[in-house]
Amino acid sequence: MKALLAEFIGTLFLVATVVGSGIMAVQLTDDVGLQLLINSLATGGILIAMIVALQSISADFNPAVTLVAVALKRTPARAAIGLIAAQIAGGIAGTVLANLMFNLDAITWSDHERSGGGLWLGEAVATFGLVLVIFALLQAGRDAAVAYGVAAYIVAAYWFTSSTSFANPAVAVARMFTDTFAGIDPASVAMFVLMQLVGAALALLTIRILWEKP
Amino acid sequence: MKALLAEFIGTLFLVATVVGSGIMAVQLTDDVGLQLLINSLATGGILIAMIVALQSISADFNPAVTLVAVALKRTPARAAIGLIAAQIAGGIAGTVLANLMFNLDAITWSDHERSGGGLWLGEAVATFGLVLVIFALLQAGRDAAVAYGVAAYIVAAYWFTSSTSFANPAVAVARMFTDTFAGIDPASVAMFVLMQLVGAALALLTIRILWEKP
Amino acid sequence: MKALLAEFIGTLFLVATVVGSGIMAVQLTDDVGLQLLINSLATGGILIAMIVALQSISADFNPAVTLVAVALKRTPARAAIGLIAAQIAGGIAGTVLANLMFNLDAITWSDHERSGGGLWLGEAVATFGLVLVIFALLQAGRDAAVAYGVAAYIVAAYWFTSSTSFANPAVAVARMFTDTFAGIDPASVAMFVLMQLVGAALALLTIRILWEKP
Amino acid sequence: MKALLAEFIGTLFLVATVVGSGIMAVQLTDDVGLQLLINSLATGGILIAMIVALQSISADFNPAVTLVAVALKRTPARAAIGLIAAQIAGGIAGTVLANLMFNLDAITWSDHERSGGGLWLGEAVATFGLVLVIFALLQAGRDAAVAYGVAAYIVAAYWFTSSTSFANPAVAVARMFTDTFAGIDPASVAMFVLMQLVGAALALLTIRILWEKP
Repeated sequence: MKALLAEFIGTLFLVATVVGSGIMAVQLTDDVGLQLLINSLATGGILIAMIVALQSISADFNPAVTLVAVALKRTPARAAIGLIAAQIAGGIAGTVLANLMFNLDAITWSDHERSGGGLWLGEAVATFGLVLVIFALLQAGRDAAVAYGVAAYIVAAYWFTSSTSFANPAVAVARMFTDTFAGIDPASVAMFVLMQLVGAALALLTIRILWEKP
Repeated sequence: MKALLAEFIGTLFLVATVVGSGIMAVQLTDDVGLQLLINSLATGGILIAMIVALQSISADFNPAVTLVAVALKRTPARAAIGLIAAQIAGGIAGTVLANLMFNLDAITWSDHERSGGGLWLGEAVATFGLVLVIFALLQAGRDAAVAYGVAAYIVAAYWFTSSTSFANPAVAVARMFTDTFAGIDPASVAMFVLMQLVGAALALLTIRILWEKP
Repeated sequence: MKALLAEFIGTLFLVATVVGSGIMAVQLTDDVGLQLLINSLATGGILIAMIVALQSISADFNPAVTLVAVALKRTPARAAIGLIAAQIAGGIAGTVLANLMFNLDAITWSDHERSGGGLWLGEAVATFGLVLVIFALLQAGRDAAVAYGVAAYIVAAYWFTSSTSFANPAVAVARMFTDTFAGIDPASVAMFVLMQLVGAALALLTIRILWEKP
Repeated sequence: MKALLAEFIGTLFLVATVVGSGIMAVQLTDDVGLQLLINSLATGGILIAMIVALQSISADFNPAVTLVAVALKRTPARAAIGLIAAQIAGGIAGTVLANLMFNLDAITWSDHERSGGGLWLGEAVATFGLVLVIFALLQAGRDAAVAYGVAAYIVAAYWFTSSTSFANPAVAVARMFTDTFAGIDPASVAMFVLMQLVGAALALLTIRILWEKP
């Protein structure tokens, strides 16, 4: 139960930051580059804060990460459904909270289409790298560095992937519910999630090659 | 006595940075997004510096944090009034110092009205997250990570909350005394402080659920 | 074999970030200063992520670093050729990946001429500092700080050197293959690599003076 | 002798970054706020890199810091003159190197006047805070955090002090020799250095109150 609450709160703050910082940035500057820089730095900040805070309980905040943890026998399979449900619920709650803090309707559907080969490749690459960073650190016993490694990775991935690196099925779902800077057209979500799972699977394979005994 | 001096100095530098970096940013650029980015990064920087420096003595710099520390029996109740008084005095001194460094009158009343449901919700959310991050780390025995967790959180919270995340009663009071970028109309302060205390109380409840034994 | 894969992946992500974040930045803002700020912060982020992730296996990502490691007897000489080949292959793969993610041709030759005394001096200085930071930390037994020291150094070196601090022969070679923000005219590469090796050799000399026993 | 070389190299890179990043920033953007943001982040980056790299030998890079270290009996008085000379020589070499990397004359005198009560107060405050952060961490035995605390502090201090926080006599002297963004008119230097020493003396007093036994 504590793990579910931790996953709910952490994913809530993660998505509230992705969405909320996008709204604020658009209100304050017309430079789209600066908007995305703000969006990326704010996301990096909340990732450090929520991972260090909740890591002693549970801090995946990402169904792709939870699934790989199950495959590596770090999380019991029967716990995964609850954790993933908490992540999705927390993510949607984060979008609603961000909308409400900025006096918008609690839910509005995004019509921001995000699709095409370049973006799909981007999501696979983004999730591959994210999963690799997390489990490489855990395999090496450097748990305390996960927060900084993940945050630094995501700040970079916002920029080096054409998709701005959603890299998280729960976040992709949650970002449907806001017609603002960070939103995504519901019709674009399925391919994003699929490519994220492809990237995560490739990362799992890489982790097994690099860290498992022969 | 050492704790009072540490709280005074730390809160002084915190508020001097919030106010001073706002003044400097407005002098150097017209892009409001860039102004707030500078303001948020400077605040994150001073939080890291002052928390790591003064943590071995006392480094709350925030009455909401001190009150939660009392509720969790980490700080004796009889010490709280002194610490909070030192924080408020330090905060006001920080505003005065920033005004003087930029050749402004020592005190000018802000007329920057900050009110409305979205902002009040923002302050509650902002303080909830801040208190959660601090005490989650202390409960887990990761004191050395508090500075980085708090700074990263505040950089994010400047952007994902509509209120730019004051999240601190002493800072809210101190920011009345400067009619510059970071100022707040005195009439707006009471609701900010009230919502901060609501957020802190909810965080206390969450911490008890997540970390206290059944 | 694991070391080769780690060097390939790490250098791939490093170059994909250098190239990809440059493409994205140019798409989103016209301010060249902001473009390079984004480019430098994204590069710093991926350096933290990839070094912390892969350091337990192999994380040079840079032939100049590998050569100095051989000279200091930290890496066996017979391993160096493989590592350097993996770095160059990974770097080129990173450029190709970035181009593809942004729907560009897999390879386009850059015509961005980068030459002249100031830039060559810049590359020597940049590589001197990079190699010094890495091996100073290793000599002092502070391996865990390498990721942060290197990333912080490179963010600075993007700006204080006139060449924007390539400081890495594999990256210099890889950046020939993209006619975008981060590209370099193939005719400019040889002098960049030469000056990088000069800087690395001077750093090796300095490390011997500072850390070796008399 | 090793300490002198370390102080020379570290201060050289520090000043080369302050000066060089200012030149580059002005070349790439017209937004003065963005120029100073770049300047401050680059300076923070090089401080992390040089302090972590050279701390195992000697990493004051600042005569005010060395003098306080002598007063606290952390550095022998007879060593101070050599260290300070190395810092000043390194600083000037850093300015020359930055000028040369950007194809400017090796030395040009700055005519950037920096004077007035607000700026002088700013330098005293800036140096007070810097010295406090450094020795607070050393007194608490947290040497490894000095690099991050100092860098975070300086990024903030660029913005919250009206003087942009030189906070270092060797740097103030070195910045006379470049007629670029970071330069300072030689006639303004004496008062800057004086106020820095005043700030350092007040910090020494505060450190004695906070950490010395009664």
